Amino acid sequence: MTAVTPDLDRLAIDTIRTLSIDGVQAANSGHPGAPMGAAPMAYVVWTRFLRHAPTHPDWPGRDRFVLSAGHASMLLYSLLHLTGYDVSLDDLRSFRQWGSRTPGHPESGLTPGVEATTGPLGQGLANAVGLAIAERRLSHEFEHLVDHRTFVIVSDGDLQEGIASEAASLAGHLRLGKLIVLYDDNGIQLDGPTAMAWSEDVPKRFDAYGWQTQRVPDGNDIDAIEASIEAALHDDRPSLIAVRTHIGYGSPNKQDSQKAHGAPLGPDEVRLTKEAYGWDPDRTFYVPADALAVFREAVPEGERLFEEWNERLATFADGHVDLAEEFLRRVAGELRPGWDAGLKTYETGTEVATRNASQDAIQALAGSVPELFGGAADLSESNLTDVKGEANFSAEAPGRNLRFGVREHAMGGIANGIAYHGGFIPYDATFLTFSDYMRGAVRLSALAGLHVIHVWTHDSVGLGEDGPTHQPVEHYAALRAIPNLWFVRPGDANETAAAWAMAVERRGGPVALALTRQKLPTLPGTDTKAREGVRRGGYVLRDASGGATPGLILIATGSELQLAVAAADALEGDGIPTRVVSLPCWETFDAEDQAYRDEVLPPAVRKRVSIEIGVSLGWERWVGDEGAIVGLDHFGASAPAGTIFEHFGFTPDRVADVGRRVVREGLHGRIPTVDGGHFAAMAGGHPTTPEGDPGVDRTGSSDPGHS
Amino acid sequence: MTAVTPDLDRLAIDTIRTLSIDGVQAANSGHPGAPMGAAPMAYVVWTRFLRHAPTHPDWPGRDRFVLSAGHASMLLYSLLHLTGYDVSLDDLRSFRQWGSRTPGHPESGLTPGVEATTGPLGQGLANAVGLAIAERRLSHEFEHLVDHRTFVIVSDGDLQEGIASEAASLAGHLRLGKLIVLYDDNGIQLDGPTAMAWSEDVPKRFDAYGWQTQRVPDGNDIDAIEASIEAALHDDRPSLIAVRTHIGYGSPNKQDSQKAHGAPLGPDEVRLTKEAYGWDPDRTFYVPADALAVFREAVPEGERLFEEWNERLATFADGHVDLAEEFLRRVAGELRPGWDAGLKTYETGTEVATRNASQDAIQALAGSVPELFGGAADLSESNLTDVKGEANFSAEAPGRNLRFGVREHAMGGIANGIAYHGGFIPYDATFLTFSDYMRGAVRLSALAGLHVIHVWTHDSVGLGEDGPTHQPVEHYAALRAIPNLWFVRPGDANETAAAWAMAVERRGGPVALALTRQKLPTLPGTDTKAREGVRRGGYVLRDASGGATPGLILIATGSELQLAVAAADALEGDGIPTRVVSLPCWETFDAEDQAYRDEVLPPAVRKRVSIEIGVSLGWERWVGDEGAIVGLDHFGASAPAGTIFEHFGFTPDRVADVGRRVVREGLHGRIPTVDGGHFAAMAGGHPTTPEGDPGVDRTGSSDPGHS
Repeated sequence: MTAVTPDLDRLAIDTIRTLSIDGVQAANSGHPGAPMGAAPMAYVVWTRFLRHAPTHPDWPGRDRFVLSAGHASMLLYSLLHLTGYDVSLDDLRSFRQWGSRTPGHPESGLTPGVEATTGPLGQGLANAVGLAIAERRLSHEFEHLVDHRTFVIVSDGDLQEGIASEAASLAGHLRLGKLIVLYDDNGIQLDGPTAMAWSEDVPKRFDAYGWQTQRVPDGNDIDAIEASIEAALHDDRPSLIAVRTHIGYGSPNKQDSQKAHGAPLGPDEVRLTKEAYGWDPDRTFYVPADALAVFREAVPEGERLFEEWNERLATFADGHVDLAEEFLRRVAGELRPGWDAGLKTYETGTEVATRNASQDAIQALAGSVPELFGGAADLSESNLTDVKGEANFSAEAPGRNLRFGVREHAMGGIANGIAYHGGFIPYDATFLTFSDYMRGAVRLSALAGLHVIHVWTHDSVGLGEDGPTHQPVEHYAALRAIPNLWFVRPGDANETAAAWAMAVERRGGPVALALTRQKLPTLPGTDTKAREGVRRGGYVLRDASGGATPGLILIATGSELQLAVAAADALEGDGIPTRVVSLPCWETFDAEDQAYRDEVLPPAVRKRVSIEIGVSLGWERWVGDEGAIVGLDHFGASAPAGTIFEHFGFTPDRVADVGRRVVREGLHGRIPTVDGGHFAAMAGGHPTTPEGDPGVDRTGSSDPGHS
Repeated sequence: MTAVTPDLDRLAIDTIRTLSIDGVQAANSGHPGAPMGAAPMAYVVWTRFLRHAPTHPDWPGRDRFVLSAGHASMLLYSLLHLTGYDVSLDDLRSFRQWGSRTPGHPESGLTPGVEATTGPLGQGLANAVGLAIAERRLSHEFEHLVDHRTFVIVSDGDLQEGIASEAASLAGHLRLGKLIVLYDDNGIQLDGPTAMAWSEDVPKRFDAYGWQTQRVPDGNDIDAIEASIEAALHDDRPSLIAVRTHIGYGSPNKQDSQKAHGAPLGPDEVRLTKEAYGWDPDRTFYVPADALAVFREAVPEGERLFEEWNERLATFADGHVDLAEEFLRRVAGELRPGWDAGLKTYETGTEVATRNASQDAIQALAGSVPELFGGAADLSESNLTDVKGEANFSAEAPGRNLRFGVREHAMGGIANGIAYHGGFIPYDATFLTFSDYMRGAVRLSALAGLHVIHVWTHDSVGLGEDGPTHQPVEHYAALRAIPNLWFVRPGDANETAAAWAMAVERRGGPVALALTRQKLPTLPGTDTKAREGVRRGGYVLRDASGGATPGLILIATGSELQLAVAAADALEGDGIPTRVVSLPCWETFDAEDQAYRDEVLPPAVRKRVSIEIGVSLGWERWVGDEGAIVGLDHFGASAPAGTIFEHFGFTPDRVADVGRRVVREGLHGRIPTVDGGHFAAMAGGHPTTPEGDPGVDRTGSSDPGHS
């Protein structure tokens, strides 16, 4: 292999390489090989194509660069430092150390110039597809004010992931021509040569997706890389450039081996490698002045681009003052005044599935919150997420309704990418059960603090006949477990409108809405109480009658809230003063102060029953040692919804019965389902006691007390 | 379009169609269109190729048929009835009803002849790849005693899913020539024409994966379908046959429309459709005798095949009596006597990462449990899951170590497929965080009751520098939420050996092992107590000294068990009699009887502290109202592991301090981390109180009591 670069280019490229090597070595942890191999392609992108402004890293007009191969983070940090971002040599020296801005994998929001949190493979490519979709839509909405490209570097591992396949297939379908993907084709993954597990023809596969594909046989040939990027920019399809590289390039003993992948080269090999580059082996974190000068041209060039953009915006504003202001509002992430005025209030008793109330909310918000932009994974007719009267986003026209296809994981990654872009509040949609398919992306929306709304309908066994493969049971708990995700399960139409309002208002993290397929009655009191109550996560929907101190609190979410209300009638009839608490969002309730929480759940009222048709895990937090949990600790069943609720014991009578026994007999702990169908037997560690017996005491007490 | 089939074939095919139509109509729920379009290809497979024995549905030598498009379940149920499985017309009439054997989507174990639980799209194809891998490996191990094909019908939606891409890429790489996939290419998905979201060239894509690909332009041309399957069987690559069909074929008003996809045709359209077929529109669930006769040939033919197989087995046994017995043991799923004799016991104090102890266990079991068969998603050097000295499973040789590539979701689906096959205890492996990527498959392993072992290493922030993208925090809770999954987090090397033993012994469900990257000390007492204690899910590792009644119980899992032991020393020094309970598996502990649970966690001892470096969700179950939870309710940080533990307060001193305050000051509830790093602020609803203040009382009490 011949390095064909002139000396200064080579010096600059080797500066990226040596900084990356030194960063990993100093941390004694990390991935040196990929930066060493991919440095030339990154150099070409960053010095010859990328329109960015290191001193204005949030400039909305900038090109986006996503390092999908996040393990090559030192490559990105080196470039950020070299091109003049607020990333110092000391930051590079503290790679992977506590409190540094250079964590093991890039984290958006932590480090200026990092466009996406990457590392979990495949996500970055999906994010990039989202960035390109956002660009096209925003450009359409604002008369080409926005016009940028999205560059990505992906690894073998990225392209093996299903999420990458899904995202690439959609990108090809949508002809996202401004998306340029450089594939670091180094033939090595963690376990060894890629050929151990992978023998597909990657460009052919992308060709099948409708991409332009090119190959660069020598990853050090920067002119060939440049020419291929030029060609990519002149093609209206998304482009994949497979660049044949050498992992650990230049390392005498580790090049082209997995030994260069996930561990430092070691002090000796670092010296040998630097010598091979013609560098002083004794110097670390060394940046030759000539090389720095090449990179730092990005600063004045960025200033120029930024000024040019501002002038363009000013000119644009001359002709479209409202549109320009609207643009600035959008990218600032502020809501229009009165954005929520159209949200409906539903009359008590009206029967509405919460997915339909969600559809109403989307429709009501569509005009006043034009930044709402999303769609479903081939379930728009079930999730009811289309904005009526708007076109599909397609290759021909960037309409407002996204059609993700049956590609949940990419959908999540793309929604994240749209959020990274700015100017939008993206939403995505599927059945709640299939949140599992996109969980990798959901986690990252929470970790990166992205404002994404996940619309997950068919939120329980209440979906009925489709059966246990489609019925979420464990998902409420599993999603509540994710830090910084708000999981909201509204109990009727008014709570759904309120949930949409809180979802739109949130900043700094994702919101998941769990919505019913089946109709629910609009409950007394939600018309006035839901808006504030849902935002706070929990509230007293109905108190014990006549101002009595409650002897029992029923706590419910979603479709089970109606059971609590109906059971409260029966219990009050029995002389048990009963409060009903709606608890649609644990996370925001938990964030309220102690005084409010005590107001809703008075510490003195220890007799409590929770009702939620999902696993009991976590409910002890709210019901305490003397409370009972009416949950569902096994999988569902295929049958009409009403039949399932009946068999599992989710009826007002049953809830009232449990409530009575909690108060009068000291029943507490998890209450088994009445007839669990064929899955009850494999409840696996969630033992069910015979109907009529006291529940299981989770703290080990075999002596149920009395109130 | 011309139907080219002779009359009897046509009659038989229309029998499948009308049964499917009638089943969906009777349920008033389901998917009629796909069975109507795909009936001819299914007919060809089932009557001209499939070697099966309806009266011996578990015959190990049978061909496997997987309906990956599980929503077309009535197609499969109709075939099962028609070919003579124990599925009656009444079963078809009770499609999607409570307690029936014909649920909305096929469920393995519930219905004879259903090879895999399908419906969540893409899973069935991955299962089929697993079935084909299992066949090849078992055939190799038992000198070609096993020799069968795997047939699959997939939909557009299946092929859009990332898991399908991953599985197909691996199948091509492995040249699984006995895998024949018929693609029901009907151009319609739920939202409308597939062209709305999908324009890739599917055969070209599969060609890129290394598959043989064919197209059949008319899905009613059964001779063309037959010829393509013949050609597929003579090719050593896996085969994709794209069969152009018409969803809702024959329905005058709904054919080729999404209206035929996910809803019954409706009574009028049912009549019109039957008329179009030339059938009496008044008859439902009608099976013409001539058609039945064609299908029922499967019974005597199956008997013949079954007998032939038994003779073959007998002949085989003549020459290889041990091998034949071993084969029968394997397919019966029984373990060899003394299978666990090689498991190591570790001396107290030995420092071993539990991933290394797991490697020891795999090695120890490899000889005595030859059915253990698995591998990692490109992390074998981190997960340490290879069986040493064994070859890779490759296109050339079916070795024992699977190389899944970076394809977690397909890995999960393939492991499930291997389990469906029988004869193996499959295991898969990745980082615990990336269990998210395969969660769709993990759920199905639990729902279908598959004996699969998931080996998930790097099980906490203790993985260190890779940072929060790679650090599981919410995963313990999220996995404990899945019914019928045993989640085991062993606390040292002896507990890891015990965890492997319980994982191998389990039947009827999956076991997940969460293992450390970092070294852990072997703790006093685990050498003798762990084997039984881990199996039971929880046990007293160390009791209060001198036979005192404990004043405090410390409960811990995994790497935090050492903290509990060390803190107990300090607490005992302070005069607080302290018990340490190891709780590696909540599910089996929960399944123990009350007496055992009370023995381990005496109801009278209310002062308890849990220590686990993950979200607190669920821990109230074990610590109760007076206990405290030392957890981690926010994301991690990139830094050396020791630094992270220190900052987050996971140290013996800190645990002892909390324990002291629980006993002496009534501290209870969730205890915040000391210094949560940059994610603490976005803990989102998991409020942290200042260090030194009492924790948050989850039940609302603002009045911490005293013991």
